[in-house]
Parts: sequence; structure tokens; C-alpha cells
Amino acid sequence: MLDDMFDYLENIRDRPVWQPMPGKVRARFCEDIPRSPTDLSAVHEEFLQDVLPFAAGNVHPGFMGWVHGGGTPVGMLAEMLASGLNANLGGRDHAPVEVERQITRWVRAIFGFPETATGLFVTGTSMANLIAVIIARDVALGFDVRNRGVAAEKKRLTAYASSAAHGTIAKAMDLCGLGSDALRLIPTDSRQRMNMYALEAAIHEDREAGRTPFLVVGTAGTVDIGAIDDLARIAELCGRHELWFHVDGAYGALAQLAPELAPRLGGIERADSLAFDFHKWGQVPYDAGYILVRDGQLHRNAFATAAAYLRHAKRGLAAGAEWPCDFGPDLSRGFRALKVWFTLKVYGTDALGAMIGRTCGLARYLESRIAETPELELLAPVELNIVCFRYRGEDSDRLNEQIVVALQDSGIAAPSTTRIGGRLAIRAAIVNHRTSCAEIDALVEHTLCQGRALEARVMERAAAGATELSSPNAPGDSHAYCRISHTMAGEPGGSTTVAAG
Amino acid sequence: MLDDMFDYLENIRDRPVWQPMPGKVRARFCEDIPRSPTDLSAVHEEFLQDVLPFAAGNVHPGFMGWVHGGGTPVGMLAEMLASGLNANLGGRDHAPVEVERQITRWVRAIFGFPETATGLFVTGTSMANLIAVIIARDVALGFDVRNRGVAAEKKRLTAYASSAAHGTIAKAMDLCGLGSDALRLIPTDSRQRMNMYALEAAIHEDREAGRTPFLVVGTAGTVDIGAIDDLARIAELCGRHELWFHVDGAYGALAQLAPELAPRLGGIERADSLAFDFHKWGQVPYDAGYILVRDGQLHRNAFATAAAYLRHAKRGLAAGAEWPCDFGPDLSRGFRALKVWFTLKVYGTDALGAMIGRTCGLARYLESRIAETPELELLAPVELNIVCFRYRGEDSDRLNEQIVVALQDSGIAAPSTTRIGGRLAIRAAIVNHRTSCAEIDALVEHTLCQGRALEARVMERAAAGATELSSPNAPGDSHAYCRISHTMAGEPGGSTTVAAG
Repeated sequence: MLDDMFDYLENIRDRPVWQPMPGKVRARFCEDIPRSPTDLSAVHEEFLQDVLPFAAGNVHPGFMGWVHGGGTPVGMLAEMLASGLNANLGGRDHAPVEVERQITRWVRAIFGFPETATGLFVTGTSMANLIAVIIARDVALGFDVRNRGVAAEKKRLTAYASSAAHGTIAKAMDLCGLGSDALRLIPTDSRQRMNMYALEAAIHEDREAGRTPFLVVGTAGTVDIGAIDDLARIAELCGRHELWFHVDGAYGALAQLAPELAPRLGGIERADSLAFDFHKWGQVPYDAGYILVRDGQLHRNAFATAAAYLRHAKRGLAAGAEWPCDFGPDLSRGFRALKVWFTLKVYGTDALGAMIGRTCGLARYLESRIAETPELELLAPVELNIVCFRYRGEDSDRLNEQIVVALQDSGIAAPSTTRIGGRLAIRAAIVNHRTSCAEIDALVEHTLCQGRALEARVMERAAAGATELSSPNAPGDSHAYCRISHTMAGEPGGSTTVAAG
Repeated sequence: MLDDMFDYLENIRDRPVWQPMPGKVRARFCEDIPRSPTDLSAVHEEFLQDVLPFAAGNVHPGFMGWVHGGGTPVGMLAEMLASGLNANLGGRDHAPVEVERQITRWVRAIFGFPETATGLFVTGTSMANLIAVIIARDVALGFDVRNRGVAAEKKRLTAYASSAAHGTIAKAMDLCGLGSDALRLIPTDSRQRMNMYALEAAIHEDREAGRTPFLVVGTAGTVDIGAIDDLARIAELCGRHELWFHVDGAYGALAQLAPELAPRLGGIERADSLAFDFHKWGQVPYDAGYILVRDGQLHRNAFATAAAYLRHAKRGLAAGAEWPCDFGPDLSRGFRALKVWFTLKVYGTDALGAMIGRTCGLARYLESRIAETPELELLAPVELNIVCFRYRGEDSDRLNEQIVVALQDSGIAAPSTTRIGGRLAIRAAIVNHRTSCAEIDALVEHTLCQGRALEARVMERAAAGATELSSPNAPGDSHAYCRISHTMAGEPGGSTTVAAG
């Protein structure tokens, strides 16, 4: 099994990025619950045949669809060790909890947080954002709100984030009972950064209306284009208005490890809380989200509870002053810290920072390829490692949507789509450490190839007098696509000559 | 690394269940964040020296401290595969999501839920309970509460659980904004089951006071003694009063797999939602919690959101009608389903059910050993696999607390403590599939040994005219303990003759 995974990772370029599951494979997942045992080797064989070939593809260097990390063999091995130890990091006194505490010290060091800061592994930034919103809620309303509920309080809280902020902020407002309407989405400037004047005005307006502003969320790396809010100005504003300053740095925060990018995050060290994922730019296998809170006492007050079966003892296995379950919603918690510990130790933060810088270089290289290609158009500034562009043409939204599906189907590249200023964009998020100029070139070439083929088809049909265009998503459509095989994607150092961005 | 873990699991009985970390080991976790790379083998060596020997011990058959599963090599290998694939199960169209859907079908089959039921992996039951409370909240207040917040609603919701229910129910009420005061803790009968008359009365009283009862949480396996509420009667009551019926089956729900235990869970098939963990009795490595919701549409309505970067396409990688992120708070989600898939396939549900039944048999065996030992006293009925007892003696709470710390320090057995009717109990939760009569005998023998030694010490001191007893938790105390080595714990089939319970 281990050899199979090493082979998979080593030869990932020989595989398609992604391929649709045939119906007969999908049907095999409908078999009944197994009452009798099956040989491990047979189950592994099933995994090799039915699961492995049909993964999402984010291990592959051609995956650029969403902000997913690529994983590493080191992370995989560490997860195997963690799983064998089978540690529950809810609390108690054992080495796995010490490893998580060490990561907290390291995360504090990365972001310049004080020793009073506490941290916690969670699934991902969605959960980390929820934790931050709950702490901010409880600080604003007083910790007694935990017992009394938000309806018992007279204050009507309002929060602020840019319109480019991730939807999990609104969802956190919903889940914690404040309601997503209480989140004001502040307009952005031309680079999708929160407009600070609009923010100040919105706060003023809410205060005038008798509401209680309590939280501003700055984004470090927006999901659509990787924009970074002016964190220093938000910190200053939050200080002045006594608001909680949370940074959603889901993927962008770790740019802090790249010396040339870190200045762009200036102000992050002044946040009251910071959420980010190690499984994105950190390349740690899923899932490994993190929440860091400046004032550990507030963090604890928002989550600690007392229960006889969770009583901390002074000695023995139930000892330990601070248990992780007192800092978040989870009592059962796997050993996420170990894969991060291995990743940081084996690669070192310098190399991780260099890799993060390299992905941004690749984005600039893609930007330059787009600039020199008349059929392509850049739709948003390249802030970090995300490039939003499109193939120019009539009925452009539909055309580019078809191009993206065709690229995904081809197995060569897997970008995704998003909307920029109302227009559908091909979105390439370059997160995987395996991605090189070769994959960028393949993306450009095959976008052109697919775009031309689709346009030719439209013209052919028009010439043939076809009055009705088929649905863009009809299964039969793929036959019209430019026929390409994933083995054409090229390897780094192959025949395609490229200059590193 | 893999060989080391196999050796670890194979020879776990040669190790102490748990041992305290020496100060010098703990200090090594204070080293600075590593900027430069380190050889993987060196980091692994560090893991072997500083982490592995100081784990919590739940892999060990002598661990009975909390309701932790023991893990399996199969689960470990599956987690390695999942980690190599590095799948994010937030959404999109790939095989890992199909594996999770298959688990949903299997979980429905286990608990007799209809095809409309939806499910989701989460970290653990704490999170699963939170999800259930949020769905119930939204159903009671209308889904618009997601936007407007609970304070905008006139209804004041109240929920009900037994006083033996897990603290995460109250925490869920806190986190979702309703406040933990709105949870009524209903008294229990002599077997720690919710008193149904008291429940009915509490609902009546709240209605009279203008409040809106919305949720009853039944517990399948209370944390202290493993009691199971009368789920069928709660189902009937909830139907009559139109209340949401949630079952917290964190560890007890999987008793459904054991034919002799399943009838005790009668009524669970009528729950609106059910939370449980695969990492407890299911022996799946941490973490693998699960939430099952009868009406998938309500589940979806409570969690789905719309975002451009999460747009579902009709074809390609972004296809798939139902994305897991629409059913819970997580967008980044590891591939928990794979270790459950491997566990259920390789062992089969019959064998898992037999193993669960066996742990309950061991609890009855421990009960019989306590009954035949005059120095020991049972403090609560043995409902499933948890046994609460104590060593009789003066200053019993303090004495038993010292016994438990001494047992943990000895490395032979690791029970925990809880309070039953105000009295400190030694709590043995027999969850690990590796536990046998030998470990039960060792627990009894060494409880007696420690109890006698501690009592003798008190008498010695009294005889010597010592006027001041040392603190029960002073580090020096351990020198007075009965000296035992973990190698005395015995192996199954060894010299200790025992009858399987």
C-alpha cells in the first residue's frame, strides 16, 4: 500500500489531472453494507481501481481549480504515524498535546504574536473563522451571553468584511446566532481590497442607528483573485473604534514565510485573531486549519466548560493546565499537529517560503503569457498566485465555461471558473508545489486549442444553418472538443522552453 | 516508519499504558521554529524518542480512562492512503465524495433511517451535536433566522436533555446563540435515564411561561455510566409535541451492531438526527464523528450557501448535485470516509458488533470481580461497557483519586475518575478491542494493591505521630505507592486464569 502511494506520487504526471467517473464505477459504491470480512488486499485493490484514479486531482501539478494544496509524501507518512498512535488531542497530559503546543509557539513566531496568544488546530478556516466570530461575539456581549443567549442582550451587533471576503464569514454569523444580515459587505477598490472610507462610513452609520459594531474581518488572499486588505489600516481603525480585528488568511497568511511577500501582510501581527490553513500553501495533507488568538484568556473564556469527566487533575494522565477542548468546539480531535510538525521540520520554513514565492512567480509567468496572446484577456490583477482570465469571443461566458469543462475533461489542466465584474473567468490558482512552467504553458496552449475548436464548431453550425445551439452542458458536447490527451501536457525540462517567472 | 508502527501495535502490551513525560523531553518541544531542512529519518527518530512513548495510551488494552477507541492497523493504513490522495471532501465530483456517500447509505441501513436521510463526517460528536442543534433551531425559527439572527425572533426556544447528558449539548446551545440556560437538564431515574414525567412537566411549564420547546436530546450511552435513555418514549413524546428528536449516541449508538444490544436502542430509528463517533467503539482512528439527519432537505436548508467560487457545474470537476459543504460548517474536509470504508469492509459489521458485545461482557466480568471483592464497591449499575467503582476506606474520595493516579503512573492500567452521586468513582470504560480479562484482572489486583499501600501509609504516619498529611498530589507521594512494574500486567492466556464475561 505504501509502495503504491509512493508510485502514485512519483508518477502523478503520467495520470490525467482529473477524469470523470464511469457510471459502472460509480455504481459499485452502491453495494450493501458488508457484514462479513474481506481481505485487506482485496479492499486495497478496490481502492486502487475505483477510488485512486478518480480523485479530485489536487496532487497533480496541472490542478489549478481551487486553492488546494498538493500534499507531500512527508505529510502522508506523518499522518500514518499519527493514525497509528490514534491520539485524541481533546486534552490530558501526553506528547501529542505538547507537539500541538509547539506548533502554537511556532505560529506565534511566524506572525509576530505575543506569548499570551493561544492556538488550535481545526478542520479548516471555515471552522477557524467561526471560532473567531464566537470569541468576538462573547467579548462584545460579555461571556454571560454563553448562558443567556444573544436574544437576551439589548445590543445588536454588526460585523464588517469586504464584498470579496469568503462566504464562511457570513456563515459564521449565521451559525453563531447573530445572523448573516448583521455582516456588512464593504465595497472594494480596483484591486478588490476593502474600501477603508466605506468601512468607516458603515461603522458610523450603524452606530447612529443604535447598533453595536464589534468585528472587522480583513482578508489576506481573497478567494477570487488573492487580494490582500490593508491590514495595517484595519488594525488602526479597530484600535480606534475598539472592534475585534480578525484576519481570514485561509490561504494567504502563509505568504508570511516568503520574505518578498511578507511586507504585503503588514498589520497581520496586530490582529486579535487569525485563521489560516496549513493544507493550502503549507502543502500539509487535508485537513489542518488553524486559529490563533492574541489574548488566550478571552479565547479560553469563550470555549471552556466544566464537566466531571473532564476534570483536570494535578498529576497523572488527566493533568495538564490547558486542554485544547477548552479553546474550541471539539472534544474529539485527531493529531493534525504531527503532519505540520514533520512538514515544518523536514522542509524548514525557508524552503516553504521559497516554494510559496515560486507559485506567485508562476502566476506572473501566466500573466505574461496572457499578455502576449491576443486571444486571451486578463480579468483581474495578479495579486499573489491566482490568475483570472478568459478566451475572447462571442457569448464569452458560455464559451469560457465550455473551455473549462473541456480542459477538466482532457485531464491536462483543471482550472475552475468564477465571476469577475459579472463576467465568467477562467480561474487558475497555482498552489501546488509540483506545478512548473510546463503546466502553465499547457494551460495556455490548451485553452487556445479548446477555444478555437469551440468557436469553429459554432461557425460550422451557423454555416450549416443550424438554428438551435445545443445546450452547453449536454453530454454529447465533448465530442466536438479539440481531441487531446493528458500525455501531451509535457514535463518540466521537456521540449517547451519557458522562463521561470 | 511503517515497520515501526507495526512493531508498536504488535508489541503494545510490552509498554506501559501511559507514562509521564520527563521534564527534559517536554523541554525539547520548546525549540525554535526550524528554518532549515532536517532529514526525514532524523525527525522520525525524534518522533520515536519524544512522542511515541508518551502517547495517551488508548491503543493499549489497559487504557480504560475515557471512551477512546483503540484504533487498528487497517484504519492506520487507510488514513495513509487518504493522506496520500490528499482529498478535500468539501465538494466537487470525485470518488472520495462517492465513498462518503456510500458510508451515508450504510449508516442509514445500520440505524433504519429512510433514503431521504443525509449524513456528514465531522471531527466528533461535539460538532455533530452542534450541527443537530443548529438544524433544530432553524426548523423551529424558520430558515430566515440564518439571515436575521435569533434575536430578531420573538420565540424563546427551550431544549431538553437529561442531567446525565454530555456537556457538548449545552455548549452547542451556547455556540449557536440560544444560550445554555435554555437547555433544561431533566432529572434521571436510578439508572441515569431521563425521567419522562419530569420531561413532560418541564415542557408543559415552559409552554405555560410563553417559551417554545423545540428539541429533546436523548442519550445513547451516557459518558459517566453508559446509560441509554428510553428512546422510543422520547420519540413518541417528540411526535406528540412536534419537537426535534436528536440522539447523542457518541459512543453508544454503534451498539446497534451487536444483536444482543440493539434492542436497548429501540426508538433510535425514529430520531430526527443522530450523532455518533466511529473513533470510539468503531475503533476507527481519530477523528471520525458522524451526523445523520432524517430529512435531508432540512439539513441542506440549514447549511447550504451560494458563492461564485463554489458554483456547481453540470459537468466536469465542479459537478455533483450535493456537495458535503452544503450540509455542515466545513469547506475543507479530509477524507475521513476512507478509514471507515476500510474498517467496515475489512472487518465486516458482524465482527464489529461481536467486538462491541465482548467489551460489555468484560464490563460484566469486572462487575463480578468487584462483587466478590469486599474492599471494592460498585457505584453505578453496569449498563454497557463502563464500570464505576471504588476502593472502600476512610477519606474515600481522596484515597480513590490517589489510587487512580498511582495506577496511571504504574503503566499497568489507566482508568479515570468521575463523580457518581457526589462520590468520586474509579471509572473504567472498556472500549478497546484489545482489552481482555487479563487487563480487567490487573486493574482489580492493582487497585487493591495501591489501596492497601496507601492505607498502610496513612496508618504508619498516624502511628509515627505525623500531624500533617502531605498533599495528595505532591510529587513525592509516588514513592509511597506499591511498587509495580507494567510488565506485571499479564497477557491474555498467561498465568492469570479468567473466565470471559
